[in-house]
Amino acid sequence: MKIFAGSASHKLAKAICEYLKIELGDSETINFSEGNIFVRIKENVRGRDIFIVQSICYPVNDNFMELLFWIDAFKRASADQVTVVVPFFSYAKGDKKDEPRVSIRARVCADAIEVTGADRVLTMDLHSPQIQGFFKIPVDHLYALPVICDRFKEEGMDNDLVVVSPDLGFGKQARKYAIQLSASVAIGTKERPRHDERAEILQVIGEVEGKNALIVDDFTISGRSLVEVAKVLERKGACDIQAAVTHGVLSAGAVERINDSPIRKLIITDTIEHSSGELGEKIEVLSVVPLFGEAILSIHERTSISRLFPPGL
Amino acid sequence: MKIFAGSASHKLAKAICEYLKIELGDSETINFSEGNIFVRIKENVRGRDIFIVQSICYPVNDNFMELLFWIDAFKRASADQVTVVVPFFSYAKGDKKDEPRVSIRARVCADAIEVTGADRVLTMDLHSPQIQGFFKIPVDHLYALPVICDRFKEEGMDNDLVVVSPDLGFGKQARKYAIQLSASVAIGTKERPRHDERAEILQVIGEVEGKNALIVDDFTISGRSLVEVAKVLERKGACDIQAAVTHGVLSAGAVERINDSPIRKLIITDTIEHSSGELGEKIEVLSVVPLFGEAILSIHERTSISRLFPPGL
Amino acid sequence: MKIFAGSASHKLAKAICEYLKIELGDSETINFSEGNIFVRIKENVRGRDIFIVQSICYPVNDNFMELLFWIDAFKRASADQVTVVVPFFSYAKGDKKDEPRVSIRARVCADAIEVTGADRVLTMDLHSPQIQGFFKIPVDHLYALPVICDRFKEEGMDNDLVVVSPDLGFGKQARKYAIQLSASVAIGTKERPRHDERAEILQVIGEVEGKNALIVDDFTISGRSLVEVAKVLERKGACDIQAAVTHGVLSAGAVERINDSPIRKLIITDTIEHSSGELGEKIEVLSVVPLFGEAILSIHERTSISRLFPPGL
Amino acid sequence: MKIFAGSASHKLAKAICEYLKIELGDSETINFSEGNIFVRIKENVRGRDIFIVQSICYPVNDNFMELLFWIDAFKRASADQVTVVVPFFSYAKGDKKDEPRVSIRARVCADAIEVTGADRVLTMDLHSPQIQGFFKIPVDHLYALPVICDRFKEEGMDNDLVVVSPDLGFGKQARKYAIQLSASVAIGTKERPRHDERAEILQVIGEVEGKNALIVDDFTISGRSLVEVAKVLERKGACDIQAAVTHGVLSAGAVERINDSPIRKLIITDTIEHSSGELGEKIEVLSVVPLFGEAILSIHERTSISRLFPPGL
Amino acid sequence: MKIFAGSASHKLAKAICEYLKIELGDSETINFSEGNIFVRIKENVRGRDIFIVQSICYPVNDNFMELLFWIDAFKRASADQVTVVVPFFSYAKGDKKDEPRVSIRARVCADAIEVTGADRVLTMDLHSPQIQGFFKIPVDHLYALPVICDRFKEEGMDNDLVVVSPDLGFGKQARKYAIQLSASVAIGTKERPRHDERAEILQVIGEVEGKNALIVDDFTISGRSLVEVAKVLERKGACDIQAAVTHGVLSAGAVERINDSPIRKLIITDTIEHSSGELGEKIEVLSVVPLFGEAILSIHERTSISRLFPPGL
Amino acid sequence: MKIFAGSASHKLAKAICEYLKIELGDSETINFSEGNIFVRIKENVRGRDIFIVQSICYPVNDNFMELLFWIDAFKRASADQVTVVVPFFSYAKGDKKDEPRVSIRARVCADAIEVTGADRVLTMDLHSPQIQGFFKIPVDHLYALPVICDRFKEEGMDNDLVVVSPDLGFGKQARKYAIQLSASVAIGTKERPRHDERAEILQVIGEVEGKNALIVDDFTISGRSLVEVAKVLERKGACDIQAAVTHGVLSAGAVERINDSPIRKLIITDTIEHSSGELGEKIEVLSVVPLFGEAILSIHERTSISRLFPPGL
Repeated sequence: MKIFAGSASHKLAKAICEYLKIELGDSETINFSEGNIFVRIKENVRGRDIFIVQSICYPVNDNFMELLFWIDAFKRASADQVTVVVPFFSYAKGDKKDEPRVSIRARVCADAIEVTGADRVLTMDLHSPQIQGFFKIPVDHLYALPVICDRFKEEGMDNDLVVVSPDLGFGKQARKYAIQLSASVAIGTKERPRHDERAEILQVIGEVEGKNALIVDDFTISGRSLVEVAKVLERKGACDIQAAVTHGVLSAGAVERINDSPIRKLIITDTIEHSSGELGEKIEVLSVVPLFGEAILSIHERTSISRLFPPGL
Repeated sequence: MKIFAGSASHKLAKAICEYLKIELGDSETINFSEGNIFVRIKENVRGRDIFIVQSICYPVNDNFMELLFWIDAFKRASADQVTVVVPFFSYAKGDKKDEPRVSIRARVCADAIEVTGADRVLTMDLHSPQIQGFFKIPVDHLYALPVICDRFKEEGMDNDLVVVSPDLGFGKQARKYAIQLSASVAIGTKERPRHDERAEILQVIGEVEGKNALIVDDFTISGRSLVEVAKVLERKGACDIQAAVTHGVLSAGAVERINDSPIRKLIITDTIEHSSGELGEKIEVLSVVPLFGEAILSIHERTSISRLFPPGL
Repeated sequence: MKIFAGSASHKLAKAICEYLKIELGDSETINFSEGNIFVRIKENVRGRDIFIVQSICYPVNDNFMELLFWIDAFKRASADQVTVVVPFFSYAKGDKKDEPRVSIRARVCADAIEVTGADRVLTMDLHSPQIQGFFKIPVDHLYALPVICDRFKEEGMDNDLVVVSPDLGFGKQARKYAIQLSASVAIGTKERPRHDERAEILQVIGEVEGKNALIVDDFTISGRSLVEVAKVLERKGACDIQAAVTHGVLSAGAVERINDSPIRKLIITDTIEHSSGELGEKIEVLSVVPLFGEAILSIHERTSISRLFPPGL
Repeated sequence: MKIFAGSASHKLAKAICEYLKIELGDSETINFSEGNIFVRIKENVRGRDIFIVQSICYPVNDNFMELLFWIDAFKRASADQVTVVVPFFSYAKGDKKDEPRVSIRARVCADAIEVTGADRVLTMDLHSPQIQGFFKIPVDHLYALPVICDRFKEEGMDNDLVVVSPDLGFGKQARKYAIQLSASVAIGTKERPRHDERAEILQVIGEVEGKNALIVDDFTISGRSLVEVAKVLERKGACDIQAAVTHGVLSAGAVERINDSPIRKLIITDTIEHSSGELGEKIEVLSVVPLFGEAILSIHERTSISRLFPPGL
Repeated sequence: MKIFAGSASHKLAKAICEYLKIELGDSETINFSEGNIFVRIKENVRGRDIFIVQSICYPVNDNFMELLFWIDAFKRASADQVTVVVPFFSYAKGDKKDEPRVSIRARVCADAIEVTGADRVLTMDLHSPQIQGFFKIPVDHLYALPVICDRFKEEGMDNDLVVVSPDLGFGKQARKYAIQLSASVAIGTKERPRHDERAEILQVIGEVEGKNALIVDDFTISGRSLVEVAKVLERKGACDIQAAVTHGVLSAGAVERINDSPIRKLIITDTIEHSSGELGEKIEVLSVVPLFGEAILSIHERTSISRLFPPGL
Repeated sequence: MKIFAGSASHKLAKAICEYLKIELGDSETINFSEGNIFVRIKENVRGRDIFIVQSICYPVNDNFMELLFWIDAFKRASADQVTVVVPFFSYAKGDKKDEPRVSIRARVCADAIEVTGADRVLTMDLHSPQIQGFFKIPVDHLYALPVICDRFKEEGMDNDLVVVSPDLGFGKQARKYAIQLSASVAIGTKERPRHDERAEILQVIGEVEGKNALIVDDFTISGRSLVEVAKVLERKGACDIQAAVTHGVLSAGAVERINDSPIRKLIITDTIEHSSGELGEKIEVLSVVPLFGEAILSIHERTSISRLFPPGL
């Protein structure tokens, strides 16, 4: 077994190796001035069980193409099994054709990964569970939920808790958080007060008054939808308002937006790397390194991954 | 262009042909006593643009295998393009791996359809929009929503309307009905009053008191979840309670269950064939024949299908 | 190595496990009221060498689709090798396009099995040997012939034996039985006495008078062709008339038909499960469990399977 | 539509073009001294419906590889449809794995043809009908039977006719000749007089005494099995003995062997080219050019090919 | 026929449309803040013959992924044929495994393009001609050579001309320029004066003294190798020194480097877009728009593309 | 691990087995009179790591088809990994489409090898390095260069050495020889003295006077281009003239041509078998058996192959 790092996830891959007490594989990525990427494996991998860790985060396309080149390089170097470890897969958002004449980008990516020769995917909190079905190769899917819920259970709480999904799409997933935290569910939905009117007003349906609220989502880019929901919650009488997302993309301005909002704390995980100091005081990073480490070990030693999670997840 | 009927959708295919003023293609299906199915095309199809209509409904596996044999027979008979018209695709429900060590059955079906040689799929209200991405071949996806909403607009209404999704999974889709009908949204969700307790209690979140309620879903098998939600709605003070689903599977006992429930009327469409009289008084069948007819014409004449639907659907 | 049972071959799989002194794998199949099948593997199979035993017998399409879902479930659960053990493959009969515009159903099934991810097929007495070529994956093909011939050799015989094929298609195979049993060959063929006449009369060519006759075939569904040949044999002066087929499909009425015929005994094997008592007195079941058990062992331990059979089979 | 000739079938392709009153496509094949073959298309074929005629006859491997290069050259030159016209396909004989650890050579060839890009195959009297199932692309399969039977009907006959298959494998096909010619069937089979003895003696089962005999087969290489059967027929009192095969491979010595045998006349067709004079007096060549011409026209004009043959063939 | 522009080649696509007197297809590309690209076709393309123009130039990976999404969007929108027009394909440089454990990046790109569903590629001056063989789909390959040579012939010349390849890899291609321009050939090669010494010294082999020199290459990124060769040529007594490359990548600093060099003029083409003024005085841009326009017309109208070029190119 | 010999490389395979101190696998190839090839593996290979050694040399097409049948036979016999060892691959020369409407024959061969089921290719000095990219399966590529250079270093030299490529295509490769031998480079190129004139005159560019010359190439068929260059070198004052090619195809007349030329010695390797005595005095055969032996060992034991070669090769 050898674990290699793509340029998007060097810190995470190194942390996983430390968790597993093995050396990170020796390799390098070169970015040429004309825009081409070049990858080179610097040790023998013939017959090895390879894990290449690379989040498909910003710069998304560079990181994706680099991943393809890694897969090809490992296969042509006669690696035995190549497991693509993608903690965050940005194009998972493009999982359907919700308007005419657009691409299903997550399937395009899945096909490119498969045709290049990957043998397995290990990922976390995909935007929709159906994306596993875009792949023919096995997908091992991890959940940040136990890590996040454990963090909240630690704190204890004075009031009832309501788990809030910012939109209808994440409602089903929010309920899983609610069950783990013995909470009720509320959901944001944009309604149009009158027909044919363009303006949509964010509503939150479900009881929130006098409750502590935990807004949950799979990722946040600008923080905007989290903040909008938080404001409605505040207006409707929710007490302490916190948020938790697995993937903290946090594009420019997101940290400030969170800081200026009614959200007291935002939990993210380390699936996407941020430089220290960049995240400010309200954002707390939980580590999914142990989960990925255990999953990689399970894959290599042929033990069950589902044992890492509570049943029914 | 020729349209053929699989044995599950003979009535629907015939109605589409009448709508398009063409003859139904000549073919036969034979069921042998050992359980094998045999299909035979009884006219020349060389170079033709073929549409084979077959819902994957009860008996699901027989109908699915028959569909594969049709595809193979048409391709080996040198048909030009074979469009698989699947008004209802029962295995669409199996669209994810929501527990360990199960199959993603919709992807299995998609792969079998593709490997056998289908060129395109025309279907309606798949259980989740991501299923389009299980196919590499183009999928033209129709919505029963305009047919259903038009029916409700005809009636007029005395009270405010709330569109109710029986569960969190259909919430996003329910909102589309709400927008078309200028209604608000409410959603059913099963909660566990206390942690670790197995009993789940159905809640409806969102305002329903004093409103007319329209419960919507993509399909109903036993009618059970529609009826459960209707009872909660009744308890919470909803006025007139109706329901509408695209695919009325209606297994044994479903019609009685609806009849004995607070649901005043259940709208279904003709994607699945029922013998007349079987459905009772509360169930009304709307026809999607014109939608399928226009879509088939669009495919054959290379015009846009999206023009058949309101934008944003 | 783990052996699992599909719902068509639970008894056979269990018997194979007992032969090999291992536990049957833990799994379940659920049939829903709408007609969908759902399969669930109930133990860890990551990296295991899996054998899933499922005859494609009545109900053929349910059993076939269930098999596909098993394959997908095992592959997505990261099984190493999935060997599909299909003692009887009903659609093998659909091995050619013997009239215009029909499907080659055995190839359709082979493609579906392969695209879903099976790594190997283990089967017995396919309707034609060419079907191995419908698969790209290796097919290990077993013969019931030694089991059947040994049974006949046990009995001894007073007269010369003639092995009779009920039709021209099985003639080549019948000769193999004849060689093993030091017998001559006769063959049934339907002739039209005069040109353009539709009525076909069954002839048996080859010497049968005063000989004991053994009618052989790969399978019998209704028993009709066996009985017809037996009547001709009786008329032409054959003495003791017996029959032997590998796969005893035996649809409704078949047992009675055999009972009322000149056939003294019909040998079948246990590739298809029948409830006890159902078969009557004339039908004797030989077990192919040891053959399948040894073959599975050979596959797992990388030893030769051809050693199980006499050369030239 | 354009028809091109591979180097094995130049005469046949030219004759088909004359039948269809079109020009043969301009192309050339070069054989280099190191053993490489090189093909060049010498006119624009972009968007054309291409037929490349090439029997896979001696030298089999050269002709097969040349065919692959033609397919690739046409596809890369942007031909629309490439139909591979293979009047004789020598490797069709390798259609099963009748002993351990051998190749199914016909499937290997089918895969190579498909992966190179052929869109369709047009062929005649394959060694077994199952070979169609080795291809995913449509196979249009022609029969020389009507041409051969018409020739025999012309002659008239004094005695009853028996159609004789030289072995059990061709029995089913021989029956089709018998039905067309209102004849009975007899079949050659090699038996071992006593068990464990190696010597096999050719028997003919079925009535032949006092009848005219027509031995039929799909091809003959050395003529040996035809001659052996003819000798048995002569010994058993058959009158006039003739033979007919579709593909006259006729390796060195075959013509002499026929000449010195009880066979009065051997009918072959022109699927394989022979230089004039080479065949001697007993061998008569019937032309299948009109059949191939009509079939090519049907494929191009999208009309039925099955209309060229009597029903039930 | 419809031509669409990817975001890398909007000017070129528009110019081709003007040349062909048709409208550019309506579409848009959106770059999201998290790094995802999204493409949308804004008119009906069902059954159309589509050409999507997108150079794979800087930013290479963004442009490549966008191209994949275009292909998928067109295929899922039921376009008939999708021709990928790639004037410059940056990853063509990665066409071999010239050191251990690296990727063949051009093949990775070719596979991704094919699996996504492209039907054909139209490109110009690939880094090596073998790259056509990385694709199974037809590749129509254009040459800038006639455009460039015509420009030089226009000028006339006082002295003998020598065409100079900056390295051994482009030697064969340089000879084609020499033949068209009735010139001799010289070639740059880096030699090591003494064994084991790391310093390599650029040599030019072939006669250059007193001749006009034209340095040719397929692309230049930094201009460095052109300038180095020019300096050696100057030192060896070459007269007027010019250069010509098909693809002027011209990364930061390249224009200055050319300006400060002995190269009097550098010819590039418009396969890569540059903002006006950016290129300075020494660089002249020739247009390949007519070549691409004629090639697209040929593809659509099924006429020969090779007619656009001198024989033997 | 088992090594088998195809009929083209029996001596080489046996020598490799002796080098590795293992037994050659038991198998046979039969050539039938009709031109079909038949292969049979005569020992159990289930689960084994198989190496089949077969040069694709004269008779090229027979040897290629035989190789395909070997691959299929091994895969269907359930071999684990099948490595195709192709010391010389004649169709590698067909690696591009250098004129309109021809085939890229090396890609056709690569696809046929892959679709038949090979897992890996081991080869030597392919005509161009890009051919590795025609395969998706890993290609391990060996170089005869160290063997050849070691032979020359042994001899010592009185004069400076120039390595000469007979044409521009091999220039880049010739430079690698030059670097290993501390030599300079010269290159043959055919020029046309005046435009439009057909006669081409061979020039050698680069310094050769007073130097020893070593002409290098990947293969020679007729010896003609080696001899032509040698004559020019002689005329230009080169001293001792030798030549070295990896693959000595040596068609009829080649040995005489070398004997009558200024070439003092021609080095070839044993990738192609020649009968002893056939080669004459000037031709010396170096063995690549140790290289292939070590490479096969590396593949089997999962060690690095690149360690066998100097860096930068």
